[in-house]
Amino acid sequence: MAEQPRVWTAALLVIGDEILSGRTQDKNVAQVATWLNNQGIRLGEVRIVPDDIDRIAGNVNELRSVHDYLFTTGGIGPTHDDITVDAMAQAFGVPAVVHPAARKLLEDYYRDRPGGLTEARLRMARVPQGAELIVNAASGAPGVRMENVFILAGVPYIAATMLDALTGKLEGGRPVVSVTVGARAAESDVADMLRETEEANPGVAIGSYPFFKDGGYGANFVIRSEDGELAERTGEQLAARLREAGYEPVDGGL
Amino acid sequence: MAEQPRVWTAALLVIGDEILSGRTQDKNVAQVATWLNNQGIRLGEVRIVPDDIDRIAGNVNELRSVHDYLFTTGGIGPTHDDITVDAMAQAFGVPAVVHPAARKLLEDYYRDRPGGLTEARLRMARVPQGAELIVNAASGAPGVRMENVFILAGVPYIAATMLDALTGKLEGGRPVVSVTVGARAAESDVADMLRETEEANPGVAIGSYPFFKDGGYGANFVIRSEDGELAERTGEQLAARLREAGYEPVDGGL
Repeated sequence: MAEQPRVWTAALLVIGDEILSGRTQDKNVAQVATWLNNQGIRLGEVRIVPDDIDRIAGNVNELRSVHDYLFTTGGIGPTHDDITVDAMAQAFGVPAVVHPAARKLLEDYYRDRPGGLTEARLRMARVPQGAELIVNAASGAPGVRMENVFILAGVPYIAATMLDALTGKLEGGRPVVSVTVGARAAESDVADMLRETEEANPGVAIGSYPFFKDGGYGANFVIRSEDGELAERTGEQLAARLREAGYEPVDGGL
Repeated sequence: MAEQPRVWTAALLVIGDEILSGRTQDKNVAQVATWLNNQGIRLGEVRIVPDDIDRIAGNVNELRSVHDYLFTTGGIGPTHDDITVDAMAQAFGVPAVVHPAARKLLEDYYRDRPGGLTEARLRMARVPQGAELIVNAASGAPGVRMENVFILAGVPYIAATMLDALTGKLEGGRPVVSVTVGARAAESDVADMLRETEEANPGVAIGSYPFFKDGGYGANFVIRSEDGELAERTGEQLAARLREAGYEPVDGGL
């Protein structure tokens, strides 16, 4: 058997009381997951923690040591509850300092805006000593890269522009390819078929996701593999077996 | 000063490759968070992990020991990728067994359905030895309670009925009350005001959540406290200070 290709993994640390209180529906997990997959990096785990410096710092140090990359979202604005940079500095054992290029970015951004670069706004130029900046094409304040840790904004569309700025720049492996086959079958009726199809095709994982809508039910079966052809072939096998069993398979899912 | 009332906390473990791949947008974090708050229990952290028995079991044991309660969502269906019960049995060091009452529920549920209670469906009657059932009013398969761990379905509306079944049954403290004040202010312009208002009212936490929409911008300021009157009073103070500074405060947020 060929040597297994290296799998690159990342963790995501979502920072924010507003997610844990239920006030805000998180959107960053799905968008970071999708972006990572396109870079050939697998999202291995997510943690959501409150605005607490020690908790953030502790989780940063746990996660950055067991994954190739760690991404964080949230807590990099100008207000007192924005403490991600301080937590990161604590995690790395360095001071938080004003980054000259970040200060310049904010000076330019706020030059013609009321109030100019206030002390509160200057907070957004702070980074853990030794960090680099991540371009923010949406608003003034940049993201921050510290070694293998990437600090992104919490507002989803700003986080998205920071991910855009990082596209193609991180070392990764092969993206995982997903092939979806749907059917109006109770998943419990095809459980054996799914297990057997997965076992017959080493290198794929098959997930089964039932749905109940419009008074009907069914399930989508998602075949994932780093080998795109294998995923396609397995999808065709599963579709054929579903058809034999009397279900109409739907390519791309229902 | 009066003794601080006990704070009850819970963790949520979301189990599922489909969340980590970005395929499925999680809905359970927000609904579990909101429900917990109504029970007087604070959601202290969330972890999202893949369909991997060892990873699930390890996280279960970490989280159930540091929180009053642990909730899990996902992985309790009839297919080969539904391994939450096995992981839970491993975490507790007990075998997974068929629960007689769960078998009865499934027998009744599938009596008049095609195929009846197949072996795959009977998987949904398995629990870690010693567990109790959580009523599922939406479909046949029950949730599972094992000591301080509550195993819920991943499909959000089924998880919701299981939470309904648990409403009022868990010991908790006082719910956290949130008061929201919105304003068309850049949060960086009111950062000092927010910090000072928080400092002047011990027992509240103020979060600042900027938004950018319809070509305008602004922020919502969320005052949280277990003392509802204090939260209200702090909200009024903040609204008054916003008005003094030339911003029109909006009760309930923008």
